[in-house]
Amino acid sequence: MSESSDPPLVLLHRLPSFNYFDENLSRDFRILNTDTLSEPLPIFLSRHAASIRAIVSVGGLSITSELISHLPSLQILVCTSVGVDHVDLAECKRRGIAVTNAGNAFSDDVADFAVGLLISVLRRIPAADRYVRSGNWENLGDFQLGSKVSGKRVGIVGLGSIGSFIAKRLEPFGCIISYNSRSQKQSSPYQYYSDILSLAANNDVLVLCCSLTDQTHHIVNREVMESLGKDGVIINVGRGKLIDEKEMVKCLIEGVIGGAGLDVFEDEPEVPEVLFGLDNVVLSPHAAMATPGSVNNVAEVALANLKAFFSNQPLISPVQLD
Amino acid sequence: MSESSDPPLVLLHRLPSFNYFDENLSRDFRILNTDTLSEPLPIFLSRHAASIRAIVSVGGLSITSELISHLPSLQILVCTSVGVDHVDLAECKRRGIAVTNAGNAFSDDVADFAVGLLISVLRRIPAADRYVRSGNWENLGDFQLGSKVSGKRVGIVGLGSIGSFIAKRLEPFGCIISYNSRSQKQSSPYQYYSDILSLAANNDVLVLCCSLTDQTHHIVNREVMESLGKDGVIINVGRGKLIDEKEMVKCLIEGVIGGAGLDVFEDEPEVPEVLFGLDNVVLSPHAAMATPGSVNNVAEVALANLKAFFSNQPLISPVQLD
Repeated sequence: MSESSDPPLVLLHRLPSFNYFDENLSRDFRILNTDTLSEPLPIFLSRHAASIRAIVSVGGLSITSELISHLPSLQILVCTSVGVDHVDLAECKRRGIAVTNAGNAFSDDVADFAVGLLISVLRRIPAADRYVRSGNWENLGDFQLGSKVSGKRVGIVGLGSIGSFIAKRLEPFGCIISYNSRSQKQSSPYQYYSDILSLAANNDVLVLCCSLTDQTHHIVNREVMESLGKDGVIINVGRGKLIDEKEMVKCLIEGVIGGAGLDVFEDEPEVPEVLFGLDNVVLSPHAAMATPGSVNNVAEVALANLKAFFSNQPLISPVQLD
Repeated sequence: MSESSDPPLVLLHRLPSFNYFDENLSRDFRILNTDTLSEPLPIFLSRHAASIRAIVSVGGLSITSELISHLPSLQILVCTSVGVDHVDLAECKRRGIAVTNAGNAFSDDVADFAVGLLISVLRRIPAADRYVRSGNWENLGDFQLGSKVSGKRVGIVGLGSIGSFIAKRLEPFGCIISYNSRSQKQSSPYQYYSDILSLAANNDVLVLCCSLTDQTHHIVNREVMESLGKDGVIINVGRGKLIDEKEMVKCLIEGVIGGAGLDVFEDEPEVPEVLFGLDNVVLSPHAAMATPGSVNNVAEVALANLKAFFSNQPLISPVQLD
């Protein structure tokens, strides 16, 4: 650890339920928990901001250039999400502030959930559950057939650790995997499409698990959905803004695409109400990464990043600021 | 085909919606479709029974010794299910009647669905879907965390083609597979438990995909569920009667086990109503095998079995009558 006498001061911003951080962090750091402040955040910052050397951010606090401007000693921002679209990365780069994310802490759980959503949409599992729970199986007659999983062509948008884990899981289902990403991965055995329109045109399912950036904002627009086609299914475990949600809702209703499994939405926790009445969608409250196991994993990764930084060791899961 | 002048007479008993059989069968056989009879079945049988050489049975018609006794020329019974617990196999053996089943026609789809149920129960996907559809995500607060899929110990009861396909699919999730079956499979890489109590005690999830026989009736009883334990999950894609359903309902309510994903029930289409109120179960109307693809596959298998039999070729998917 740092040779200075006092442990570094860490600003901890977390959801109330994520209290497992406090004890572990406080062994090696002085913690300022925004959740237990006795004064408003701006006043608090005006008193302590000069000493804050790190932020641990659990959940969606926007790390704007304005917030950063109040923190002259800030050296590292530890995020517990995979995506860091809530951070002004350009400002962090300019100031030389290191940024870390969840790394692979969530990758297994998000990949598991993505495959679960994919099977749930194709085989209509929540619809089957509603059907039986209606208590009316006998009178309803045959349950509407779902669509086969085995043999489906699945196009993955973003072949990072989560995308690779999804691909690996889908292989023994007999799914045929291809992908789109910023650049072709030489080590990947899967077919690469350099543009998402071709990926959509050549697949039955699109799985979105890329970062949200200016380049990927609304990467799935109406044209992409038209390419995917009327039996096509979209699974989104990335960020809501990867899809033009308004167009997606229209496409689902008009039958331009066949279905969707959505863990994320453009304006969470708002969800377009019209989706509640559709049988060809499966909805989830941004829970793909949420298991007790992943929550422990990410706390470990966050702590390991902080400790590494203040010991001048390499970071565990740095975000490249390019 | 047979050298006799007339094509063999086949009694076709099918669900009304399974009409894809008629055209394919009628190319090579004379068909008596019980669904289009102009007279009651007993009267019909009294006039035609003597000439019927084959039955193609789609769905749950009980093939009893009494029914068989009316059919002196019956040589082959072609079933379109995997399980043949609705057939008096002893009587078929005594009479020398060949029996065939769906073979592997459903194996991919049932395995896909079983994995889908497993993820759905552990990660609470239909519960998540209900949560979002309630329109109340903002006020409900955090969604209750599910349980991790990766790393779970999964015990498979019945390592036939479906069980093997399930195991193969779960491997890249990092699940640890073991199994119970009548005898150890020398070619299997998975740990074998010769009794289901040990299997339950050493696993987090039990997946039931064995045949229903006198030996496997209620193979999952209260003792097995107590061994599986309070976080344990049961997935049933076999037959409802593999589980003592009354005890299972109690165990789910009392927290003796953690959850269940059930495609089959003891007295379908009856489902214990108390299950409709439970959040830790996922229910499905015996739909694991039902996709357009599987329905075509099984029609092909049925036809291939019939053609093989009347050409004195080996059957595609014979049921061993032991």
